[in-house]
Amino acid sequence: MLSGRKETLKFDEIGEFGFIESIKNECITTLKDVIKGIGDDCAVFGPYSGRVLLFTTDMLVEDIHFVKAKITPYQLGWKSIAVNLSDIAAMGGRPLILLISLAIPSEMDVEIIQDLYKGMKDICEHYKVNIVGGDTVASPDKLVINVSLIGDAKENEVLYRSGARAGDSIYLTGNIGDSFAGLKILKKEISPSEPIASHFIKIHNEPKPLIETGMAIAASGFANAMIDVSDGLLSDLGHICKESDVGAILFRSKVPLSSELKLLASREKFNPLKLALSGGEDYILLLTVPQINIKDFEIVCKDKGLLPLYLIGKIVEGKGIKMVNDDGSLEEIDIKGFNHFSPSLL
Amino acid sequence: MLSGRKETLKFDEIGEFGFIESIKNECITTLKDVIKGIGDDCAVFGPYSGRVLLFTTDMLVEDIHFVKAKITPYQLGWKSIAVNLSDIAAMGGRPLILLISLAIPSEMDVEIIQDLYKGMKDICEHYKVNIVGGDTVASPDKLVINVSLIGDAKENEVLYRSGARAGDSIYLTGNIGDSFAGLKILKKEISPSEPIASHFIKIHNEPKPLIETGMAIAASGFANAMIDVSDGLLSDLGHICKESDVGAILFRSKVPLSSELKLLASREKFNPLKLALSGGEDYILLLTVPQINIKDFEIVCKDKGLLPLYLIGKIVEGKGIKMVNDDGSLEEIDIKGFNHFSPSLL
Repeated sequence: MLSGRKETLKFDEIGEFGFIESIKNECITTLKDVIKGIGDDCAVFGPYSGRVLLFTTDMLVEDIHFVKAKITPYQLGWKSIAVNLSDIAAMGGRPLILLISLAIPSEMDVEIIQDLYKGMKDICEHYKVNIVGGDTVASPDKLVINVSLIGDAKENEVLYRSGARAGDSIYLTGNIGDSFAGLKILKKEISPSEPIASHFIKIHNEPKPLIETGMAIAASGFANAMIDVSDGLLSDLGHICKESDVGAILFRSKVPLSSELKLLASREKFNPLKLALSGGEDYILLLTVPQINIKDFEIVCKDKGLLPLYLIGKIVEGKGIKMVNDDGSLEEIDIKGFNHFSPSLL
Repeated sequence: MLSGRKETLKFDEIGEFGFIESIKNECITTLKDVIKGIGDDCAVFGPYSGRVLLFTTDMLVEDIHFVKAKITPYQLGWKSIAVNLSDIAAMGGRPLILLISLAIPSEMDVEIIQDLYKGMKDICEHYKVNIVGGDTVASPDKLVINVSLIGDAKENEVLYRSGARAGDSIYLTGNIGDSFAGLKILKKEISPSEPIASHFIKIHNEPKPLIETGMAIAASGFANAMIDVSDGLLSDLGHICKESDVGAILFRSKVPLSSELKLLASREKFNPLKLALSGGEDYILLLTVPQINIKDFEIVCKDKGLLPLYLIGKIVEGKGIKMVNDDGSLEEIDIKGFNHFSPSLL
């Protein structure tokens, strides 16, 4: 037996995805009712009375996910729940009830917590979700918010990351990049004048999860796979490819960018597509639809008012994501997501 | 309209319970399926296929709820899930699935997280609970753990804090105070020799939630109300009294203390009852049983091997908790719980 040198790896050397990968297979499911454990936007279990339950959680830590000076308490409350709602939207589900855990520095003004809570209450009212409890504890210094949310969906309608098949078309339900531009403005990496700055900051701080859109897509029965764009288009499309064991091709000219972003990019001299592809927190939906369903799907979406809808690429056999340039040439893409282990707000 | 002086209350001036009280009535339940929101050990919703779902969460923050030097990573993992399981036990439920959120300092050794996770995995296997996902994020300095857990129970068996009625007998399912003695040893407030110190520390760091006991009590149909002793006997009995709008009388000589605690107290010269009443984290069950059911209840408990079971008092009309002394005199008690806003481990 070799007496090897003891490794003392630090957590940021393996990162979130490395850690999850290392434990994923050990979370043995002893219960037949667990339909999906680790590896999607939500866990799925049931069925109960013909429906499955969706279960998701997100933690926001001060100075990692937010900086007090750059988001109002109201917006922070709103956003901490919005990111969870978006996970339910990504499965095609309906949000039902949630629990809020708060770790609060003792010296924090009560008013901040009340405003935070008002943002939470308003988004819950808007999306008809109930706050049914939580845990409120002290924190030595940083504010920490954890939300855990239960939703449900019809058993046969749930959309997983793993459902994509070669030949599927890839759709986005909105523009990408605006949120990341807002983050760059908050970080003072770019400094446009008002009201442009506020426009992008608001998109970053007050995401609107697409619950109705997700439910309508799931109910249509035409899609194969879905995810919300939280880590960034490339990273999230990468999740779909990995879970579905497929590759993808993106059409460079079809990636939807807002006119505001294009204008900002031309003024501030950056490549808006590059920013949009590597950014995150768009909280729109990314889905794949088999070729045979495309016509019907687009008609249904139009009827239900689910536009905009952008066809941005194709699922293919193999691995990895390639980009089709305007001249028809293919380019391999290095997937770089939005990694909170490289604190992006500091 | 008066233009009053703006108050700038700090969070620790109103505390956890004050904050919850202030928001409790605003968490409007728009969904008919929410049977119980804020105010019990778990939220209760459904029914689904004749069963209700139980939903609970707990957050543990480094240097508030634990100090790295005083608990092993394995124990911390075990305990962070045990406290949630105990909330399910308190409703008479069965735990099913859970999500784990971890905020991890980047510089933390991966080995610590792996040991933490091993403790989590072991308790989950022991209680047949599935880890179905979570969120792993960076933290600027402190380790933060949030667990959210779903369980279920038969709709007509769930035991609430609000079910106690005047005339009920009050039972405890085990000794109290040992965990708090362990905490005092960890804090070096008392310093017994080994193996005594380790005995109490182990009880504090490795609680064993009473899932089987809780389920058997609920299934018996004989109890009116139940809670787990996490904040401390007086505080938790106070929760039952408040939610049930009743008072309580405790029999001083009947409060169960372990022989180890009594021995420790005589050596270290403290009042073991006082310590036991004000301490917390016992994670045994406190329940009330109507007079008419007592005989049958005790027989069922004996048959099912649910001993020990201690009759420690009575629910009465009115408010507050009184203590019957050995000489028959009544003493009013000031409820002092275990308040994490007065960081107890530092």
